[in-house]
Amino acid sequence: MIGTESKKQEILKAYQFRHACKVFDNNKKISDEDFHFILETGRLSPSSFGFEPWKFVVIQDAALREKLKPVSLGAQGQLPTASHFVVILAKREENLKHDSDYVIKMVKDIHHMPEEVMQHHLGFYKNFAKTELEDNDRLMFEWSIRQTYIALGNMMTAAAQIGIDSCPIEGFDKKQVTSILQNEGIINANDFGVSCMVAFGYREKDPKRSQTRQNLDEIVEWR
Amino acid sequence: MIGTESKKQEILKAYQFRHACKVFDNNKKISDEDFHFILETGRLSPSSFGFEPWKFVVIQDAALREKLKPVSLGAQGQLPTASHFVVILAKREENLKHDSDYVIKMVKDIHHMPEEVMQHHLGFYKNFAKTELEDNDRLMFEWSIRQTYIALGNMMTAAAQIGIDSCPIEGFDKKQVTSILQNEGIINANDFGVSCMVAFGYREKDPKRSQTRQNLDEIVEWR
Repeated sequence: MIGTESKKQEILKAYQFRHACKVFDNNKKISDEDFHFILETGRLSPSSFGFEPWKFVVIQDAALREKLKPVSLGAQGQLPTASHFVVILAKREENLKHDSDYVIKMVKDIHHMPEEVMQHHLGFYKNFAKTELEDNDRLMFEWSIRQTYIALGNMMTAAAQIGIDSCPIEGFDKKQVTSILQNEGIINANDFGVSCMVAFGYREKDPKRSQTRQNLDEIVEWR
Repeated sequence: MIGTESKKQEILKAYQFRHACKVFDNNKKISDEDFHFILETGRLSPSSFGFEPWKFVVIQDAALREKLKPVSLGAQGQLPTASHFVVILAKREENLKHDSDYVIKMVKDIHHMPEEVMQHHLGFYKNFAKTELEDNDRLMFEWSIRQTYIALGNMMTAAAQIGIDSCPIEGFDKKQVTSILQNEGIINANDFGVSCMVAFGYREKDPKRSQTRQNLDEIVEWR
């Protein structure tokens, strides 16, 4: 099993390589092929009930990045220097009701569920939305955002596996960013909301402090 | 760049290999080394402000799995057959206040931030908690859960990269599962809440339907 052993080591190296890169090398751009690969890992990520409640807006226009800067405190270094800057959107609750056009599209046209499977799936979902999301709009949107974090994590790891840096960003004024994206015609009200941002590129210099984490025995419990 | 090209193909193959595996081969167990590797990818996952608000409870005790079964509708096939069954916990809001013992431990003892950096980091966080999480306990817990989904996604992808199957599970009665874990002394009230479950093992048979997703042009917008 030497093959698996070296593969595991290589993957863990990518986890150590990844850090929240605040400033990127402005002269280095990610190739189209590599960025397509990163997007593919987002696209192929799993999501609850297979609803894929996400959209990836790649913001390359310097003027639009400039508009986002004053309301995105956590992206001051990343917005001007990232090779690719992504705003991840999450489906709003209206799109996620069990009888919404979007949900019906997902189970019928995307997942091609046979009628019986579909009825079972949607019945299960309806019950989940009622009991676990309390049929509450805000909780349903939060649940939608959770799913986008699976894609977020996967994209950053995939990038690191091919030597590309990234930075996840939550530090921005969600209302103002939403309003800017609405004015640009990127978001329709009630369709999507802003989940988070993630910048990709190549580091200018190595991080000052090395990566630290809690030990495994602090975060794992065996029963 | 043949090396990178084949690495990308190999990674994307893992995304295609992964599916929500409902029933595992009861006779095949994941080796300690492989499961340790999967946990490591969870441990090394990024989280907002570096707070790592997670715990991974690996439930191997058959009697405890049996107790969870009646209140975990989405885990009927996985609980009895998974090689390793994990309940992911997320830190509750009390642990995530900017002046909580846990947050202070994270910035001081885990991330070894110099005093000045720490003050800046916590000031930024305090403001984030106020403006974006509205100093609302439920939203803070939801935000904590989001972070655990980064680790969830990474662990499933890492498993798939070494040929191990998995299934993420949200379909369970959160109140009842929490209560069972409290009775077992696994969760202290106000410390952790249940985020989700994830089962690992080896598939018994291939999935009936092949993986489908929205196309890239439906979920990506360039600006």
